Amino acid sequence: MSLEKPASERKSRSRLERKLTVLKLGGSVITVKENPKTPNIQAIQRLANEIIRAKIRNLIVVHGGGSFGHPLADQYSIKEGFKKKTQIEGFSLTHQAMLELNKLVVDAFIRQGIPAFAISPSSCIITEAGRIKIFYNSPLAKLLAMGCVPVLFGDAILDTEIGFTILSGDQLVSALATRFNADKIVLGVDVDGLYPRDPKTGSSKGLIEQITLRKLKNMMVDIGRAKTVDVTGGMLGKISELIPAITCDVQALIVNASKQDNVYKALKGETVVGTLIRKK
Amino acid sequence: MSLEKPASERKSRSRLERKLTVLKLGGSVITVKENPKTPNIQAIQRLANEIIRAKIRNLIVVHGGGSFGHPLADQYSIKEGFKKKTQIEGFSLTHQAMLELNKLVVDAFIRQGIPAFAISPSSCIITEAGRIKIFYNSPLAKLLAMGCVPVLFGDAILDTEIGFTILSGDQLVSALATRFNADKIVLGVDVDGLYPRDPKTGSSKGLIEQITLRKLKNMMVDIGRAKTVDVTGGMLGKISELIPAITCDVQALIVNASKQDNVYKALKGETVVGTLIRKK
Repeated sequence: MSLEKPASERKSRSRLERKLTVLKLGGSVITVKENPKTPNIQAIQRLANEIIRAKIRNLIVVHGGGSFGHPLADQYSIKEGFKKKTQIEGFSLTHQAMLELNKLVVDAFIRQGIPAFAISPSSCIITEAGRIKIFYNSPLAKLLAMGCVPVLFGDAILDTEIGFTILSGDQLVSALATRFNADKIVLGVDVDGLYPRDPKTGSSKGLIEQITLRKLKNMMVDIGRAKTVDVTGGMLGKISELIPAITCDVQALIVNASKQDNVYKALKGETVVGTLIRKK
Repeated sequence: MSLEKPASERKSRSRLERKLTVLKLGGSVITVKENPKTPNIQAIQRLANEIIRAKIRNLIVVHGGGSFGHPLADQYSIKEGFKKKTQIEGFSLTHQAMLELNKLVVDAFIRQGIPAFAISPSSCIITEAGRIKIFYNSPLAKLLAMGCVPVLFGDAILDTEIGFTILSGDQLVSALATRFNADKIVLGVDVDGLYPRDPKTGSSKGLIEQITLRKLKNMMVDIGRAKTVDVTGGMLGKISELIPAITCDVQALIVNASKQDNVYKALKGETVVGTLIRKK
């Protein structure tokens, strides 16, 4: 008789002990989208409070750009890559705007007692044609081991193929969940979840509370075939970024982070209005 | 006859073409040391102007903490490592304070037309008992290749042995100069250079304009033997961090960056009051 547990049991046990969550806070939730560089301080403080009240261990937070990163990234066409010298200023200004928003988030988190620490994606990640190629994540792993909450963000980033580009918070969330073997992704957005309309009739089918990866992919194919624009307000684009993580058995729960206590409930594992995406 | 140049020629040629400079801007120059979190905006703007006027290619800038990083790092004993949970807040606050100062520097640089880009040391470097162990420098290399000026800073950093510590801007300067094969380090401080006093009589010997590494090391041994405190205002401590780079044939020039045009002259290679340290 061996003292060691069977590999299968060991794996499931370490999974239980780990219980890492990656929380995304959408740019449209933490900023006022209509006004350039305008944070929604009230929402940031409320979310900080929901996170500290949830008392969960092993948490990584990623936030979007909203009215900080997006206008500059668009103005200088950063996502399209390095084509002319005048873009370099915009590349740096986009990063600076994101650092400004990140500072507001991390400061608010620290004030609430969250052991938050800012990690700058462009200092430790390089993409290849827009997809994460190298992610030096040792500092992040050490922060988690110390009980800290790393706070990252969508960023203007260096790219091996096109010079620079934009790394979306959603792609980053998926990469973090996969690399750190997360159990759960909580995607905090400004809608209640996935509300696809019938691609043929255009009528709403109501909130999808739960969906498997296969059904989600079929839905995407249907919408693609109908050649309509993404009728879900960009939600399918966001979700498609999460597929690599969901394929690795990470559950993804989409909730409306603009509404009080939804993020709290999602982090605690309590019943909450939203869309849960599972591998099976 | 080979079309290829001899190795020695090729090397010296690539060295000429490279000509990378690492510029350190001391915390005592760019902040008001007496008042917590008080930048010296005038000095930052003047230095930005000196850098853009010098029109040099391949530049990395590192700045110190001054009244931003140091008071917090001291208050929470960050340099001594992770000993109690209450330090975690201070670890993050030190980093946040450095990000705040870095933002002022990078914003001022961009306004002057310098293609500056902020790199966060704690996101890409890990130390071992206070010494740089891993430095993921691909983003930095890509920035240089694109003609950008990476701007780094002394930082609160994760450490494999003691949890976390402080990485001084001076250690970072030396590591950057060595890793990127710099020709020159310009150390911008708030004194005119190295003014060691005779360790026996205590009398000043006047500014050392030029010194070899061997003589510098002997001087350090003499001062060490005399068991006096570092009578040079911490200058020898700073310089000792540069020894690994100087050993790799990087010249280090110490100038008073608080005085107009000294950094400009040092970057241009013009005659300037200061101390030049050479390997031989």
